[in-house]
Amino acid sequence: MTELVTFGETMLRLSPPEGDRLATTRTLEARAGGAESNVAVAGARLGADTAWLSKLPDSPLGERIVHELRGHGVDTRVAWGDPETTRLGTYYLEPGGEPRGTDVIYDRADAAITTVATEELATETVADATYCYTSGITPALSEEAAETTRELLAHAQANDTTTVFDPNYRAKLWDTETARAAYEELFPDVDVLVVAQRDAAAVLGRDGAGSTAGTPAERVARGLIADFDFETVVVTRGDEGALAVHEGDVYDQPVYEAETLDPIGTGDAFVGGFLARRLDGGGVDEALSWGAATAALKRTVAGDLAVVSPDEVAAVVDEASGGIDR
Amino acid sequence: MTELVTFGETMLRLSPPEGDRLATTRTLEARAGGAESNVAVAGARLGADTAWLSKLPDSPLGERIVHELRGHGVDTRVAWGDPETTRLGTYYLEPGGEPRGTDVIYDRADAAITTVATEELATETVADATYCYTSGITPALSEEAAETTRELLAHAQANDTTTVFDPNYRAKLWDTETARAAYEELFPDVDVLVVAQRDAAAVLGRDGAGSTAGTPAERVARGLIADFDFETVVVTRGDEGALAVHEGDVYDQPVYEAETLDPIGTGDAFVGGFLARRLDGGGVDEALSWGAATAALKRTVAGDLAVVSPDEVAAVVDEASGGIDR
Amino acid sequence: MTELVTFGETMLRLSPPEGDRLATTRTLEARAGGAESNVAVAGARLGADTAWLSKLPDSPLGERIVHELRGHGVDTRVAWGDPETTRLGTYYLEPGGEPRGTDVIYDRADAAITTVATEELATETVADATYCYTSGITPALSEEAAETTRELLAHAQANDTTTVFDPNYRAKLWDTETARAAYEELFPDVDVLVVAQRDAAAVLGRDGAGSTAGTPAERVARGLIADFDFETVVVTRGDEGALAVHEGDVYDQPVYEAETLDPIGTGDAFVGGFLARRLDGGGVDEALSWGAATAALKRTVAGDLAVVSPDEVAAVVDEASGGIDR
Amino acid sequence: MTELVTFGETMLRLSPPEGDRLATTRTLEARAGGAESNVAVAGARLGADTAWLSKLPDSPLGERIVHELRGHGVDTRVAWGDPETTRLGTYYLEPGGEPRGTDVIYDRADAAITTVATEELATETVADATYCYTSGITPALSEEAAETTRELLAHAQANDTTTVFDPNYRAKLWDTETARAAYEELFPDVDVLVVAQRDAAAVLGRDGAGSTAGTPAERVARGLIADFDFETVVVTRGDEGALAVHEGDVYDQPVYEAETLDPIGTGDAFVGGFLARRLDGGGVDEALSWGAATAALKRTVAGDLAVVSPDEVAAVVDEASGGIDR
Amino acid sequence: MTELVTFGETMLRLSPPEGDRLATTRTLEARAGGAESNVAVAGARLGADTAWLSKLPDSPLGERIVHELRGHGVDTRVAWGDPETTRLGTYYLEPGGEPRGTDVIYDRADAAITTVATEELATETVADATYCYTSGITPALSEEAAETTRELLAHAQANDTTTVFDPNYRAKLWDTETARAAYEELFPDVDVLVVAQRDAAAVLGRDGAGSTAGTPAERVARGLIADFDFETVVVTRGDEGALAVHEGDVYDQPVYEAETLDPIGTGDAFVGGFLARRLDGGGVDEALSWGAATAALKRTVAGDLAVVSPDEVAAVVDEASGGIDR
Amino acid sequence: MTELVTFGETMLRLSPPEGDRLATTRTLEARAGGAESNVAVAGARLGADTAWLSKLPDSPLGERIVHELRGHGVDTRVAWGDPETTRLGTYYLEPGGEPRGTDVIYDRADAAITTVATEELATETVADATYCYTSGITPALSEEAAETTRELLAHAQANDTTTVFDPNYRAKLWDTETARAAYEELFPDVDVLVVAQRDAAAVLGRDGAGSTAGTPAERVARGLIADFDFETVVVTRGDEGALAVHEGDVYDQPVYEAETLDPIGTGDAFVGGFLARRLDGGGVDEALSWGAATAALKRTVAGDLAVVSPDEVAAVVDEASGGIDR
Repeated sequence: MTELVTFGETMLRLSPPEGDRLATTRTLEARAGGAESNVAVAGARLGADTAWLSKLPDSPLGERIVHELRGHGVDTRVAWGDPETTRLGTYYLEPGGEPRGTDVIYDRADAAITTVATEELATETVADATYCYTSGITPALSEEAAETTRELLAHAQANDTTTVFDPNYRAKLWDTETARAAYEELFPDVDVLVVAQRDAAAVLGRDGAGSTAGTPAERVARGLIADFDFETVVVTRGDEGALAVHEGDVYDQPVYEAETLDPIGTGDAFVGGFLARRLDGGGVDEALSWGAATAALKRTVAGDLAVVSPDEVAAVVDEASGGIDR
Repeated sequence: MTELVTFGETMLRLSPPEGDRLATTRTLEARAGGAESNVAVAGARLGADTAWLSKLPDSPLGERIVHELRGHGVDTRVAWGDPETTRLGTYYLEPGGEPRGTDVIYDRADAAITTVATEELATETVADATYCYTSGITPALSEEAAETTRELLAHAQANDTTTVFDPNYRAKLWDTETARAAYEELFPDVDVLVVAQRDAAAVLGRDGAGSTAGTPAERVARGLIADFDFETVVVTRGDEGALAVHEGDVYDQPVYEAETLDPIGTGDAFVGGFLARRLDGGGVDEALSWGAATAALKRTVAGDLAVVSPDEVAAVVDEASGGIDR
Repeated sequence: MTELVTFGETMLRLSPPEGDRLATTRTLEARAGGAESNVAVAGARLGADTAWLSKLPDSPLGERIVHELRGHGVDTRVAWGDPETTRLGTYYLEPGGEPRGTDVIYDRADAAITTVATEELATETVADATYCYTSGITPALSEEAAETTRELLAHAQANDTTTVFDPNYRAKLWDTETARAAYEELFPDVDVLVVAQRDAAAVLGRDGAGSTAGTPAERVARGLIADFDFETVVVTRGDEGALAVHEGDVYDQPVYEAETLDPIGTGDAFVGGFLARRLDGGGVDEALSWGAATAALKRTVAGDLAVVSPDEVAAVVDEASGGIDR
Repeated sequence: MTELVTFGETMLRLSPPEGDRLATTRTLEARAGGAESNVAVAGARLGADTAWLSKLPDSPLGERIVHELRGHGVDTRVAWGDPETTRLGTYYLEPGGEPRGTDVIYDRADAAITTVATEELATETVADATYCYTSGITPALSEEAAETTRELLAHAQANDTTTVFDPNYRAKLWDTETARAAYEELFPDVDVLVVAQRDAAAVLGRDGAGSTAGTPAERVARGLIADFDFETVVVTRGDEGALAVHEGDVYDQPVYEAETLDPIGTGDAFVGGFLARRLDGGGVDEALSWGAATAALKRTVAGDLAVVSPDEVAAVVDEASGGIDR
Repeated sequence: MTELVTFGETMLRLSPPEGDRLATTRTLEARAGGAESNVAVAGARLGADTAWLSKLPDSPLGERIVHELRGHGVDTRVAWGDPETTRLGTYYLEPGGEPRGTDVIYDRADAAITTVATEELATETVADATYCYTSGITPALSEEAAETTRELLAHAQANDTTTVFDPNYRAKLWDTETARAAYEELFPDVDVLVVAQRDAAAVLGRDGAGSTAGTPAERVARGLIADFDFETVVVTRGDEGALAVHEGDVYDQPVYEAETLDPIGTGDAFVGGFLARRLDGGGVDEALSWGAATAALKRTVAGDLAVVSPDEVAAVVDEASGGIDR
Repeated sequence: MTELVTFGETMLRLSPPEGDRLATTRTLEARAGGAESNVAVAGARLGADTAWLSKLPDSPLGERIVHELRGHGVDTRVAWGDPETTRLGTYYLEPGGEPRGTDVIYDRADAAITTVATEELATETVADATYCYTSGITPALSEEAAETTRELLAHAQANDTTTVFDPNYRAKLWDTETARAAYEELFPDVDVLVVAQRDAAAVLGRDGAGSTAGTPAERVARGLIADFDFETVVVTRGDEGALAVHEGDVYDQPVYEAETLDPIGTGDAFVGGFLARRLDGGGVDEALSWGAATAALKRTVAGDLAVVSPDEVAAVVDEASGGIDR
């Protein structure tokens, strides 16, 4: 039985070798990347029975995505689009280095998933699952994708599947006002909200100011719970770690230090680690530490995916990692 | 002053390493590819003063294309599209090997060039040039691209620039009927037609049957001249070489044998070699042999582009090539 | 439900880049390779619901194998061995080129699978499956592996699962006499025998001589059926194609020509293609052509695995493949 | 019309992959490198109409250099040397890492440029240009190169082209005394001097001691202006940034922090950024910040060349760079 | 004549590219690695006449090891094992990055060296040499290897060859009690002991506590000399440098800072540098600084081997290294 | 004791990846290449005790050459030139493919070996050796190299070392007349001449015409023996195999067919195989077949060097090679 099901777009990520630039490169590394499949891979690798729902073109390129995700143990449940009329979303990633930022060029318009309809999807996995996760990227892709997102979350709710949502605001996809409206339309069907503090401030207009109780992050979390009746809110704060409010209690989790080889997918690794631990019976505090450890490990691995093992995550949590094991 | 100007789309060509498949590959080689820029590069490398007109997104990806073409000496005259709303066309190329065919997956819908307008282009280079080349791929891309193709050819004609056209039929872009209508609308403004015998048969409905004079290819050429008043018609016949009818005379050119590493762009190399020799004062016969030699050399080089030199082409024509030169 | 289940060892195949030699190379390409997983991958890719049973060390290396096979859609059912006491079998492959042969260096002694016991395996998949395949390599690995092979085949027979066996003689593993005895001990539990003509002659002592009816291959097949009551015998003859005798009828299948990039796994691809077509309702003649086509396509792909699609196999069978599809 | 023209040698730079050593490596990355073409590429990429004058062997190796520079938009004006008697200068670069220094092995003796004569060069570009740049490396290469340098600078002066010179002392080419004499012979024809503080001290004997007004760098600059009547002197001080004295005013520019992937070409990037901004109408202060930003970005890119864009430089100057842009 | 002879196992080290993981990688870099050959290579590169004794399978894989070591000037004196019955030890190395440790997976059971006998080895080189080095890894491999180690050290002692031993404890090979017993059985035949402080504490039960004279490391060294009559004891302390006690005097050596690309083999580089300097007439203090400098340089180079030169080591010792030398 | 000593230049061979061109490539494969070291490596690998004499710059580049040759078991006896004033010869190799020839660009002027003097060389190895080999390339490099060649051959003769010489005419180094005079000056000190039939014709003016006895190759051989009193003459005829005349007898050897991956060094492999077999006691007929087999195997390996084993050569000679050995 599926424990975790995620729904969203996965793209082919194309990036030049270190030190090369997109404007001149002759080779590109190809990898699968997308918030919801990133969460699925982290979850599956950490032991959760995980399915991923999406739509892809019925071509070697769509198969390429499935091949990579399936290798990590994800049960890929894909609606196949007509390869003549739909395409695979791609994104070009050019890693930076101070003072040059990391550049992301999306080429995802008209991807197969923009035509997705609820009827095409394996909704029975949603009904059966313990957790159903999607991010705020999906409703930004098209009206059809937004509608399907709404229907899936409602379907999950109707079947007592706990829904998890991360707004994951992308300025290249929509403006903050449109995004906020879309998020808030979904919130009634969301149980667990994971939100970056900067998104809470910039998009949801919640910076935790105006009160003196607790940290700003705690005030943001409590405010969201007050307004939308979430079961749990996790606020991620980059280098400052994460904070959760769950059933009235506050949990604080610092980050684990990491030598960052590739930062893309860190937040998704956090969610995957968090949910895997919850599924394994862990409390919110344990789940936060698993999320933070998975995120730290992810940063040492190339690509969007958290190619990690439960033993490695446990070692970080137990502060037993590092050194040369021989 | 420009001798040769070409107009058309150039894509980023993405191909896996030898023996790998698109469905599983982790690396892709990136190269510029497009019929008209292929012709431009061959022409420029063989000594012609060459410009290429196109439209690209104003992004590192568009710059990537310009960077590669410019390196070969092509004067790139690009209209830059808004990177938020236009994209770079790409195509995935998976080289085959008997009995597996070479697979091409186009991902070119909504490329920047589909929005091209004549006013954006450096039409003064067309007016000044000796030859203006485009292929039948361009009008297949969008109504705007088709309209611009018509206007450019008419502009060339009005300025005594010799126009060259290769239908280059692509079944993945349109059906044969639509293509034929589009080609025939352009033919009144075309002086030199280069056409694959299989396109003449399958698209133009001319298989050279119904007469006994000359070879089928010759009959195709003479029929086209009779109907559309071309100055020159070159019929390419794959392994059987090319045949031209020019001012009533027939010229026959066998292929030069080649160890084929990459067949893509062979036909474009032929056109580039043919035109470069014509510009250099060569007769149709000489130009055919330069076209054939450039095409044969192209097959030994990876990528769409004919990365060759005049000395190499001359050596093939003079049958002086081969061996180890030390 | 599983249609095809295979059981056997999968190794890490390590091979130097083209033109390099094992004695000097600095890089090795790593791929999964093993007769039974090769069959499983071909079967799964061609649409069969396929499981693979094996034993691997519980380490990143064992996981590496599972990761690759799972990517192709194989349901991997692995018994995990203690990483302290079991290891992953590896083999070094140095591709040759006339007059230099292809060199295979096995480093598979004491691999985890040599300790496999029937109780560790997902025998329920065998009982449920339509076909159960293993090769003569497995019983050569250790007494435990031989015993488990016997028990699995008997278990399959007892549950009306059709058993398929290919002796796949390996001179580096055992001598012909020992091998023959082991094969013949298994034959009573085998329904479908696929055997290379050279193995029939060299190991089973059957060269088809001594009679004048039919070809030697046919006589070999009929003789084996007479002696061991196989349902079907397929004799593979390298470049001369395959021949099957099934319910008294003879089917002859020539090879499809192929540009060989990597010959390893050709025979396994044949079996995978054959069984996939049988499962899909094809007759023995159709299955033979699917086997031959899968084998030919395999030769164009690097690695042991037949990374092919049903459409590609169908195109070869229909002689509709080749050329550039654009 | 050309805004910036540079003159000097460009070599093929050959470097092993990270972690490999020249003494054992089996692959070398090949790139174009040379102070004056580095400046030209930075200038061209930042929008200046830029030409580069040099001499190369008329061979695929010489063409290789032109191909790379032209790709960045530089107008390459090359005198072609006889490939039988001239060669392409090369240099081997082995990147270090504390405590191992970066090793440079020059193999540039008898390069084509050592035979360069003024008559071979496109001197009309010098006469037309706004700025003409060369470095103190060029006169170190041969007597002919020194003579041509003198003549070009004089020609520039005679045509009101502003001349820019960077001594760029190379201990592997000549001793400090010879270098100083050569520099000082050129100084009367130099308008803008860019000089590393360590070269000013070690070669020109100017350490800014013996006075108390301003910083040592300022004293060096003022002293050079007093003695040689330069219009502008820029003193670069490594990690401590640059200082300019121009028309009596002092401008101070700190460095922008950078994660250094490849330090080679940093100084040339500075000059290219400085001149591009001056050409674009910027004051000395703005030009210094553009120089510093271009230099910092260069350090994040592999190779000698500053593969950067005006937007990127502006973002660094505006302190708006960094992060992940999605 | 041989100055330094070492004896021990060398494995094929297989490691994925940076950022890839063993569990998913498709390429492995292959290098020779083993404590004793690491010491031999460092010694040979720094000018010592060096031989290395070992046993390898008589196959391209065994030859692969010899090829690499010989390239560095080591005189390889190998007993060749039957390739049918012996194998090459391998180890998989996955470099980490905080918080992920470096993972080492040994696959060395039943390597050829486990069958080594003294009679197979070139013992005359031991008798002639100035120094004979082996590590505590060798006796851990098999009873035969342990016996041969004992015999070789005794043979060296009998011939006035100074013996050098580093326990180099490997938890994956044996437990601390067994190791300690084996080490102490060898100590009577050891002249120079190099021991990591952590091994002294964890395995030899000596943490330098219980006294107040000198540092703990000094007390460890003096205690070992008191108990086993070593001529010299060098205690290495990771980032805190090394300490030697020799003829009653104490020598302290800090580490040289290094940007670490690959830490494997650092300790062996230290021993190689130390012995090379001793052989060149250096005192213990000089030898320690050469050891530390060789170790620091090693960290900047990929692989187990210290690919360094005497000039580079001298420059580090003289603090004259760093920067760009041009 | 040395059995075979060779003397000559070894260069760094730089070649682009397959399908890339020197005019555009960004990576170069680096390998050691030179006729005399090619012979040395083939000889050493086939069991001969082999030394190689040369002169190289005392730099990492010179060391690079030694490293590679030493790995194959060659005893490198190098005179080290001042790195400030001598350089490493290089050559750029661009593999072709019909109709494009293989291009070689030498960059060997002023290489260290051009300054070589007999006194710098380990002449004692020449005096002790059974065979001393050099090619006609060496005297073409400089007057000093020519003088040293003469002295070495005379020294060999004086010490009863059999001298072997292959003119190996290089049109890029000198004209045929100068070459012939130089060869003929050396011939009195040559015992065994190996000469390509095309060099005999084009340079030595011997095409075997003017007589009817035997084949032209035999007449060439007999004529050379008559004129210069060679002990043995071997005439190589490309695809037509080799012919030897030795003590009046004629031996004819066809080529072994080969799939050619890299033809460079084929002739040197032939000489190495021939001499290794002679040293091993083989007659001229056996030696010819070993030469031919070594040459055929060489063609399947990338680089100049014959990376082969005695077993492989024997298998080709015994026509027992090919297939997959498993």
